[in-house]
Order: sequence, then structure tokens, then C-alpha cells
Amino acid sequence: MRVETVVVDDDVAVQDSTYTAGRRGVGATVLLEKIVGAAAEEGQDLDAVAALARRVNGNGRSMGMALTSLTVPSAGKPTFDLPDDEMEIGIGIHGEPGRRRVPLAPASDIARMLVEPILEDLDFTAAPAIVLMNGMGGTPLLELYLMYGEVAKLLEAAGVRVARNLVGNYITSLEMAGCSVTLLKADDELIRLYDAPVETPGLRWGR
Amino acid sequence: MRVETVVVDDDVAVQDSTYTAGRRGVGATVLLEKIVGAAAEEGQDLDAVAALARRVNGNGRSMGMALTSLTVPSAGKPTFDLPDDEMEIGIGIHGEPGRRRVPLAPASDIARMLVEPILEDLDFTAAPAIVLMNGMGGTPLLELYLMYGEVAKLLEAAGVRVARNLVGNYITSLEMAGCSVTLLKADDELIRLYDAPVETPGLRWGR
Repeated sequence: MRVETVVVDDDVAVQDSTYTAGRRGVGATVLLEKIVGAAAEEGQDLDAVAALARRVNGNGRSMGMALTSLTVPSAGKPTFDLPDDEMEIGIGIHGEPGRRRVPLAPASDIARMLVEPILEDLDFTAAPAIVLMNGMGGTPLLELYLMYGEVAKLLEAAGVRVARNLVGNYITSLEMAGCSVTLLKADDELIRLYDAPVETPGLRWGR
Repeated sequence: MRVETVVVDDDVAVQDSTYTAGRRGVGATVLLEKIVGAAAEEGQDLDAVAALARRVNGNGRSMGMALTSLTVPSAGKPTFDLPDDEMEIGIGIHGEPGRRRVPLAPASDIARMLVEPILEDLDFTAAPAIVLMNGMGGTPLLELYLMYGEVAKLLEAAGVRVARNLVGNYITSLEMAGCSVTLLKADDELIRLYDAPVETPGLRWGR
């Protein structure tokens, strides 16, 4: 069976670090698998599906933050130490360190710390965007909606048109409290495939 | 407009306390509103819908636990103090105290502490059950599925047949870590109404 490999590397937080070779893959994975899955389901061939995956990855950018560490069950203790009054900006989904550690700040400030690096990395004003406001596992939906509200204000001010949004715990780090923002520069085709019926434990719509 | 009031009081943890008059309403609310909503949507009249709500409540039982407190934003500090190595058994959904505080224990023991009081309160062996494994807001889905696995083992051993299950954060206490178990003694009619198409932020299936 012929296979193709597409590496997702949407995280704008870290270019290269002790833990990575190139950028890390985070929230864009969710949107990519949804869109590419729909294309495969309607019978597009491998080359088309792989090209689509590369296109989605090239147009996706993410940035995340943590309010707490996570505890890998087999390790039995938190992966990193994070004081109650600090947060880590730019975390990955495996507990890797981020860009920097900063004092706790209001949601509006956190939203700015996540959205600005994304908008600096790619121009999102020229096309409609699909926005994923993702929780890391331990942050309730109430807080994710609140964060999405702050993110939406910043995007509007920056001239980014939001075509679709998805808010919830979709790509997580066990019980870590925190969130990430993913923007995907979309077009009619990507939106059509995103909207296509899906029925999985994580995503379920249109069916 | 004629209205009817139905009080949900499914929580087996507390009969009367400083905080309650009679039992509290917890997880059965989710199943009740789904089932009664479907009956109303198909045009059943008020008396029938209210009688159905009372029937669901009479057949629903719940028990919950917390690993952490919650923080009401306007209060700014945790509602109660709970040491890292202890858990509170029998909590309500507004941060009220439970039956007792105990040392941390494995998931299988926690499942037993939740399921046993439910099965002691009502006979669930004579009819199929709808089971809600609910998170309090700060517990990731991974842990809720793990807890559901433990609950399912206990129910099977007790001769309870599970007709439907629902696992997720459905009736929560902000960012509290913890969970609750709800059992509803069902029948063909309740299962049919539970299965009826629904499209809400919380529940979405069949449509």
C-alpha cells in the first residue's frame, strides 16, 4: 500500500529547542485531520489528499499556554513546576517548556499573548479563518468560551474574518489547565470539507 | 400560561444538611431535561410532560466526589479547602460539602464509593439503565472514561444492564476536579425519548 507522510508543524512558539527539530505540531492537527478525512471519505486519491494536508498545514498557526503542569501517570509527579501565580506561554502538548514564564494575567492579556505571535507569523486578513479555541484538558468549557470571546475581539480588531469556530478540549495534555489558539487560513474548499458530516468521539456534526 | 414545577432530587449523598432541604438535584437533571425535552418536542401536553419528569426523577440516583475545590470568580478564593492528598465524597454541584473526606484512593475504589450508595438506594437490576459518568469541569475526558470503565465493571457484577451511557462534562462546578455517577432506571419509552434527535451545545446526536 502506498503511503504519504505529512508533518504538522503549526506551533509558532518554538522554532527549535532541546525538545524539537523545527516547529512542533499542535492544534492544526485537529483541523487538518477533519478536512483531510472528509476529502478521503469523498474518494480523493492519495496525492490529492496529501497535497491538501500540506496546504492545511501551511495555512495553520497555533500558540498555547499553561496554568498548571500535567502529571504523566507512570511518572507520578508533575512534568514541570509552575507556581500558582505564574503561567507558561508557548507550551507544547507533551509538557515541553514554552517561550517564557510570566505572572498570572487577565484573560484579555493572555489572549493577546497567544494571538499576536500567530498574526505576526502569517497574514490572516486576506481569507476567512477557521479558529480553534482548544483546552489542554483541565480548563472548563466556561473559561474556554470566555477566552474565545477575548480572541474574537482581537481578531476583529486585526481585520481577520472568522468563518468557523470550534471551542473545546480537542488536543489536550491530560489534566493540564491551559489553552491554545489555532488559526487556519481557509477558502471555500477547506470550509466545505470542514463542514462535511463527521461522527467521531471528538467531532460530531452534520449527520 | 399554565406551568408545572418538578423538583429534581437525585443525589443520594445527603438527605438533609445545613445547605439543603431534602435531597439535592445533580446529574439526573441532564437526563431528565433530555427526555422531557424530547416528549415536549413531539407535542405531549403539559400534564404528560410533567408526569414524565416526575417519573424520570423518581428513577434517577446520583453520587459525586471532588479532588479539588472550585473558585467562584467573584469570591476569588476556593470555596472549600481540600488537601492534595484527600478527596471529598458526596459533593453537590455548588461546592457544598459531601458525606465525608477520605484519603486519595485508586479509581476502582472511588467508583465503589459512588456506585454502592446508589445501588443501596434503589434496585437497578429489574430494568435497563442509562448511565451518566459526569465530570465536574476540571477532570479530563480520559479520566472520565477510565472511571466509567470501573463503574461499568461494578454495575455488571451487580447485575445492572447498561442500555445507554454518556461520558463527559455535562453538569459541572466551574473548574472543580472530580466526577459524579448517575443511574436512571429506564424502559423502552425513556430510551426512545433519550435517543430522539437533539442539537444543543451540550448534547448533539441523531440529527
